[in-house]
Amino acid sequence: MDVADLLTSAGINISVCVVAFSLYSVLRKQPSNACVYFTRRYISEAIRPDDPFSLRRFVPSAGWIMQAWRATDEEILEAGGIDAVVFMRIVVLSIRIFIIAAVICVFLVLPVNYYGKDMEHKNFRFESIDVFTIGNVEEGSKWLWAHCLALYIITCAVCVLLYLEYKSITKMRLAHITGSHPNPSHFTVLVRGIPWSQDHSYSKSVESFFSTYYPDTYVDHQMIYRPSTVHKLKKDAKKMYRILRPVETEYVRGDKPCYLCGGTAHTFKLLQNGEDSIRSQTSIDELHPTQIEKECPAAFVFFKNRYAAVVAAQVLQSSNPMLWVTQLAPEPHDVYWSNLGIPYKQVWVRKIVVLLIALAFVFVFLFPVTLVQGLTQPHVLTRWFPQIKGVLKLRFLNMLVTGYLPSVILILFLYTVPPIMMLLSRIEGNVSRSDRKRSACIKVLYFTIWNVFFVNVLSGSFINQMSIFSQIRELPMMLAKQVPTQATFFTTYVLSSGWASLAFELIQLFALICNILRRFILRSKKEPTNIALTFPHHTEIPRLLLFGLLGFTLSILAPIILPFLLVYFFLAFLVYRNQILHVYVTKYESAGQFWPIVHNATIFSLVIAVAVLAMKKSPMASGCTIPLIIISLLFNEYCRKRFSQVFKRNPAQVLIEMDRRDEQWGKEEGIYNRLRSEYCQLAYISRDLTISKDFSVAGPNRQSSTDHNSPQGADENSLKQESDSRE
Amino acid sequence: MDVADLLTSAGINISVCVVAFSLYSVLRKQPSNACVYFTRRYISEAIRPDDPFSLRRFVPSAGWIMQAWRATDEEILEAGGIDAVVFMRIVVLSIRIFIIAAVICVFLVLPVNYYGKDMEHKNFRFESIDVFTIGNVEEGSKWLWAHCLALYIITCAVCVLLYLEYKSITKMRLAHITGSHPNPSHFTVLVRGIPWSQDHSYSKSVESFFSTYYPDTYVDHQMIYRPSTVHKLKKDAKKMYRILRPVETEYVRGDKPCYLCGGTAHTFKLLQNGEDSIRSQTSIDELHPTQIEKECPAAFVFFKNRYAAVVAAQVLQSSNPMLWVTQLAPEPHDVYWSNLGIPYKQVWVRKIVVLLIALAFVFVFLFPVTLVQGLTQPHVLTRWFPQIKGVLKLRFLNMLVTGYLPSVILILFLYTVPPIMMLLSRIEGNVSRSDRKRSACIKVLYFTIWNVFFVNVLSGSFINQMSIFSQIRELPMMLAKQVPTQATFFTTYVLSSGWASLAFELIQLFALICNILRRFILRSKKEPTNIALTFPHHTEIPRLLLFGLLGFTLSILAPIILPFLLVYFFLAFLVYRNQILHVYVTKYESAGQFWPIVHNATIFSLVIAVAVLAMKKSPMASGCTIPLIIISLLFNEYCRKRFSQVFKRNPAQVLIEMDRRDEQWGKEEGIYNRLRSEYCQLAYISRDLTISKDFSVAGPNRQSSTDHNSPQGADENSLKQESDSRE
Repeated sequence: MDVADLLTSAGINISVCVVAFSLYSVLRKQPSNACVYFTRRYISEAIRPDDPFSLRRFVPSAGWIMQAWRATDEEILEAGGIDAVVFMRIVVLSIRIFIIAAVICVFLVLPVNYYGKDMEHKNFRFESIDVFTIGNVEEGSKWLWAHCLALYIITCAVCVLLYLEYKSITKMRLAHITGSHPNPSHFTVLVRGIPWSQDHSYSKSVESFFSTYYPDTYVDHQMIYRPSTVHKLKKDAKKMYRILRPVETEYVRGDKPCYLCGGTAHTFKLLQNGEDSIRSQTSIDELHPTQIEKECPAAFVFFKNRYAAVVAAQVLQSSNPMLWVTQLAPEPHDVYWSNLGIPYKQVWVRKIVVLLIALAFVFVFLFPVTLVQGLTQPHVLTRWFPQIKGVLKLRFLNMLVTGYLPSVILILFLYTVPPIMMLLSRIEGNVSRSDRKRSACIKVLYFTIWNVFFVNVLSGSFINQMSIFSQIRELPMMLAKQVPTQATFFTTYVLSSGWASLAFELIQLFALICNILRRFILRSKKEPTNIALTFPHHTEIPRLLLFGLLGFTLSILAPIILPFLLVYFFLAFLVYRNQILHVYVTKYESAGQFWPIVHNATIFSLVIAVAVLAMKKSPMASGCTIPLIIISLLFNEYCRKRFSQVFKRNPAQVLIEMDRRDEQWGKEEGIYNRLRSEYCQLAYISRDLTISKDFSVAGPNRQSSTDHNSPQGADENSLKQESDSRE
Repeated sequence: MDVADLLTSAGINISVCVVAFSLYSVLRKQPSNACVYFTRRYISEAIRPDDPFSLRRFVPSAGWIMQAWRATDEEILEAGGIDAVVFMRIVVLSIRIFIIAAVICVFLVLPVNYYGKDMEHKNFRFESIDVFTIGNVEEGSKWLWAHCLALYIITCAVCVLLYLEYKSITKMRLAHITGSHPNPSHFTVLVRGIPWSQDHSYSKSVESFFSTYYPDTYVDHQMIYRPSTVHKLKKDAKKMYRILRPVETEYVRGDKPCYLCGGTAHTFKLLQNGEDSIRSQTSIDELHPTQIEKECPAAFVFFKNRYAAVVAAQVLQSSNPMLWVTQLAPEPHDVYWSNLGIPYKQVWVRKIVVLLIALAFVFVFLFPVTLVQGLTQPHVLTRWFPQIKGVLKLRFLNMLVTGYLPSVILILFLYTVPPIMMLLSRIEGNVSRSDRKRSACIKVLYFTIWNVFFVNVLSGSFINQMSIFSQIRELPMMLAKQVPTQATFFTTYVLSSGWASLAFELIQLFALICNILRRFILRSKKEPTNIALTFPHHTEIPRLLLFGLLGFTLSILAPIILPFLLVYFFLAFLVYRNQILHVYVTKYESAGQFWPIVHNATIFSLVIAVAVLAMKKSPMASGCTIPLIIISLLFNEYCRKRFSQVFKRNPAQVLIEMDRRDEQWGKEEGIYNRLRSEYCQLAYISRDLTISKDFSVAGPNRQSSTDHNSPQGADENSLKQESDSRE
C-alpha cells in the first residue's frame, strides 16, 4: 500500500463520516426521532412534537458538535455520573498522550525511519507505507537511539498523565461518597451465607446475630426472598388486577405497610362502590407473606451510621469464612435481585467455571467463525448444495458471497460477544448491575485484545489461528517481527472500523430502525417503551483501550498511524459527549470502578510497546528498554498501593466525619425511615407490574425512568427483561 | 543399579543411622552436654551436673525413642506451641499418605510395572531398579489403568486428609486465640505511615487521630523510636553502669515510670551510702527522653477491647491508603523492632526488590557453585597453581580433590541458603520474627524444589543447568520423560541425604562441637549463653515438603521409593518430637501460619505428580488425569475460601465473646496496665544490657528464656544478635 492509497482510503472514510454526521444532524431534528436521539429528556419531560414543519429541519447543521464541545465536565457529571466522566477522561487522556506521541514521532522518529536505509526515494505519493516504519531502519542501526528516546519521553508522559488522572478520579470518587445526599447503600450491608438453623428462620438468625454482636448500631434488616416466591406474589397481583379492572374502582392511597419490607408503602384501598364479593375473593390478604416462607440465606442489614456499616462490611465476622459473609450493599437501583438468592457457597464455583468458559470462548472464538466462513466459499457451497451452482456463476453474486459474506459473518459473530460476556457475568453471581457490567467489560477487553490485536499480529489472518498455539513460545519474537508489518492493516483498521463505529454509535441504527418500524410499518400510536439504555461501558471501554494499545505499539514502529488515531479520539470525544448528554440514562453508578481496569490496560499496552521494541535486534534498544519496563511496572505497583484500595473499600475517616455531620444536623432519623423501603424487593417487582401509575405495590422509585412511561400491559415487560441483558 | 546395590546402600545408611542414634543416646547422658541436648530444661531450671560417674552413661539405650513415641500432642503443644504441633502434623500427614500410597502401589502398581514388558526376569537380586518403574510398562499399554486408579485413590486420600488437617489446625488456631491468657497483641494495633506534620510530633498526631475517630475505645499508644536513639540510650546506660559498678550500691526497686513507655517499670534508686557526686553526674535524668526526639512514623496503639483493635486493624483508615496503615500487632516477643522504623512507603519497594533478588538467587545459584567446583578439577588447579602439580600426583590427594571437594563445596554453599533467605526476609521489612521466618520458609521452599527437584530432573546433573533455560518450554514433556529415569537417584537421595539429615539434626553437631571447644579447649568455666534456638521451621519444613514432592511424583512411577520414604518420615517423627521436647525453645508463635504453605505445596506436588503421569503417551492416562488436576485445584480453592481467611484476620464473633467474658470477670483493668510495658522498646534493649537480674530498665519479660541466664558482660550480646539471624 502506498501513500496515495492510504490517502484515498482516508478520503473515503472521511466522506462516509461527513455523510453520517450530516445525516445524524438531520435525523435528530425530526420530532419523531426524539425518543432515539434525546432519550434522556424524552423520558423525564415527555417532549411532544410541537415543532411545525419547516425546511430548517432538513438542512444539516453542526450545532450538536458545538454543543458537545462546549459542555462542561459538571454537565457531563450531572448527566452521566462519575462513570461517564471517567469514560470521557479515557478519551481526553488518549488525546493528550497521542498528541505528545505525534509531535515526537512525526518530528523525530518519522524522518529517521524514512531515511533509515540508503535508497532512492520515489515521489512521495507513490512511496510505500513501509518506508515510514521501523522496518526501513537497518538492523542494529545507530539511529535506533531516536526510537529509544521517543519511547522514554512517551512512557514518562503516560506515567505522569496516568498518575494525575488516577489521583483526580480517586478524589472524584471520594467526593461522590461524601456527596450531599445520604446514600442508603452506605448504611446497608449485604450479608450472605446466613447459616441454616432448624429452630428458626433465616430472618430470626440475622436478627439475633446482629443484635448480639452489633447491639448499639444494628437497626433492622430486610430478607431476600426466592425469586419463585416473588413471582408467585407477582402472579397473584396480576390475577387480582384482572379481577379488579372491570369494576370501576377508585384507588385511594393508603399508608399501609408493605408486606415484604414493612416500610410505609403506597398500597391501595377499594372504595365502597359495590361488589364486596370481589373484595373478599381477592383481598389483600392473598398477598400476605404467609406464602413467603422461602427466604434466601441473604439479607440487607441496616445500621445506624455509615461507620458501623463499613466496619460490619470489612471485618471478618465468623470463624467460618463461608458464613456471615458481609459486603457493603450496592445502591438500591444497582442491586441485581435475581443473583442475591444464589447461595454464597456456589459463588466461587460459578466464578471458576465462568472463568474457564470465558477463557475457552476467547481462545477458540475464531474456530466456529472460520468454519462458517469456509462454508461461504463457492466450492464448498456447491459441494453441499449442488443446485445453487448456476446461481453462483453470476459474477455479481459470486463476488458478494466470496467478498462480503465472510466479513458479514465475522461482524455478526463479533456482535454476539458483549451479550455473551454479559450473560457469563450474570451467571458468575455478581450482586450488582455495575459489578456485572465491570466484569463483562474485563472479559470483552481480553477478548478484543486477543482476537483483534494478537491474532492479527501473530497469524496475519484469521484462518491460521491454530498455528499460533503451537508457536506460542516464540510469541515475543513474533510480536517484534510482525507488529511493524501489520502497521498498514492496523492503520486502515483505525480508519475504517474505528471511524465507522463512531458514526454507528451516533446514528443509533438499531434504535432508529425500531422507531421507524414502529411508526411507519406497525403504525403504533403508543409511546415507545424500554428505550432507555445505560451507557454500554462494556463495549466502548474495550474499544477505546484497543485503539490505545494500537497507538502505543505502533507510535514508535509506524508513526503514520498517529494522525488517524488522533482524529478517531477527537471524534470520539465529540460523539460520546453528545451521546452522554442526550441519549443514555444513568440508572446506577459504579463511582469510577472502571478506572483501575483502564489504568492496568494502559500499563499493559505500554509494556507490550516497550517489549516489542526491545526485541528488535539492537543491543542498545534492548538494553535501554529493560529499565523502562521495570519503571512502568514499579509505577503500576505504586499506583495500586496508593489508589486502588479506595476503589475497593470506603475509608473510615471520611465516613465518620459524614456521620458526625449528619448527627449535628439531625438528619439520621430521616435516613432510617427510608432504608427499608429503598431496599424492598417488591418495589422492584412493582415496576414490572406497571398496571397504572398509582397501582404500585410499594415504595418510592427514585429514578423510575422508563417504567412509569409505559402504560401498556404487563406483558411488555418480558421485552424489558430481555433488554436487561443488553444493557 | 540393581536391587542388591540398593539394598547394600540401604544397609550402609541404616548402620550409619544406628551408629548415630546410639552415639546420641550416649552423648545425651553426659551431664556436660545438657546444654546441647536438654536446652529447654537447662535454661529454665539450670540443671547442674549431679549425676555421679557410672558405666550406664556409656551404654547406648533407646529410652529417648520410647519417650518421644509416648509424648502426647498436649505435651508437644505445651513445649513447642502450635507451630511445633503443625510441624509434627506435617510428618504424621506424610506418614498416613504414604502408608496408603505404599499399600496401593506395592500391591497394584509394582506388579504391573514388573510384568509390564514381555521379558525374561532375572534373579530378583540382580534385577535392575528400572524394572520396577513405569518405564518398564509399554507405551500406551492397557495396564496403565492401574496407575490411574492408584493415582485417583491417592489423590482422594490426600484431599480428605488435607481437609481434615486444615480443619483441625484452624480449630487449634481459634483455640489459641480464645486461649485463657489475655494476649496483649489482641488489644494492640501497629500503625505505620503516620503522616508528617510540622506543627506537632508523630505522637501527638497518633493521639489526635485515634482520640478523634476512636474516642470510646482508644486507650493509649506507644511510639517507636529510631534505632539510633535507642542505641544512644543503651550507650548511656552502659556508661552509667561502668561508673556505678565500682561503688557498692544497693539497688532498691522503685516504681518510677519507664521514660520511654511511661508504664510502671522496675527502675532503681541509689541509696545514701556515699558519693553523691556520681549521683549528680549520672543521674537518671541522662536517660530522660529529651534526647529521644527521633520518633519513627510508627506506633503501637492500645484499645479497650479486642473487637475495637480488630476493627481498627481491618478497616481502611484514610483516603490515602499509604497513610495510617493498620494491622494487628505481633505478640510482644515476636516484634522485630529494628524493622518497625522502616517507613511504610519503602516497604513495597523492598518487597519487590527482595523478590527479584531471591528469584535471581534461586535460578542462578548453581552457576557460582559449578564454577568453584570446576576450580577443584586437577587440570584447572595445576594451570592456576603449577607448584602443586607434584602434590596432586599422589593418588589419595587427587581422589580427595576430585571426588570429595566438589560435593563438600556444594554442601557448604547449600548451608548458606537458609541464612541468606533469612537475611532477605529481614531486608523485606517484616515487622515480626514469625513473619520473617515464614517468608524465609517460602523462599527456601522455592529454592529447594527448583534446585533439588527440577534441576535434577531436567538436567540430571548440576552442570547443565543453563541448558534448562533454553528448554524451559518443553518442561512438562521433559518432566514426564525424566522423572522415572531419575527414580534411582531420588531413592538414594532419600536414603542418604534424608536419613543423614535426621542423624545430623539429632546430634546437633554444631552445638556439640561448640560445647566441646568451650569446655575442653577454651576450658571456660562460665555458663554457656545464647544456646537457645527456636525451631528452624524455615529449613525443616521445606525439607519435609521436598520429600513429600518426591513421594508423590514417584509413588506411581517408581513405587520402590516408598518404603525408604516411610522409614524417613517415621524417623523424622521420633527425632523431631525429641528435639521439640528437649532442645528448641519457643520464643514466639505464629499460631499455625505455616500450614497454608504446607497445604499449597502439597497440592502443588499432587498436581505435578498427576501432570507427569498425564504426559505419558497414553490417551487413557492423559484423559483420566485431567479431571484429577481440575478436582485438586478446585479442592485447593475451596480450602482457601473455607479456611485461609482465619489465618489472615481474626474473626469478630470470637473476639467479641472474649471481650464480654473479660468484662464479666472484671479482667480488663489488669490488661490495660500490662499493655504499655509489654510493648516497651527499651524493655527489649534492657535484655541486651543484662547487667544484673535486678538492673533491668523496664518491664516484665514473660519468657525471658536465655537472657536471664547470662551473667556475663554485655559484650556477649553481639553474639546473640548474630545468632538471631540464624534462628
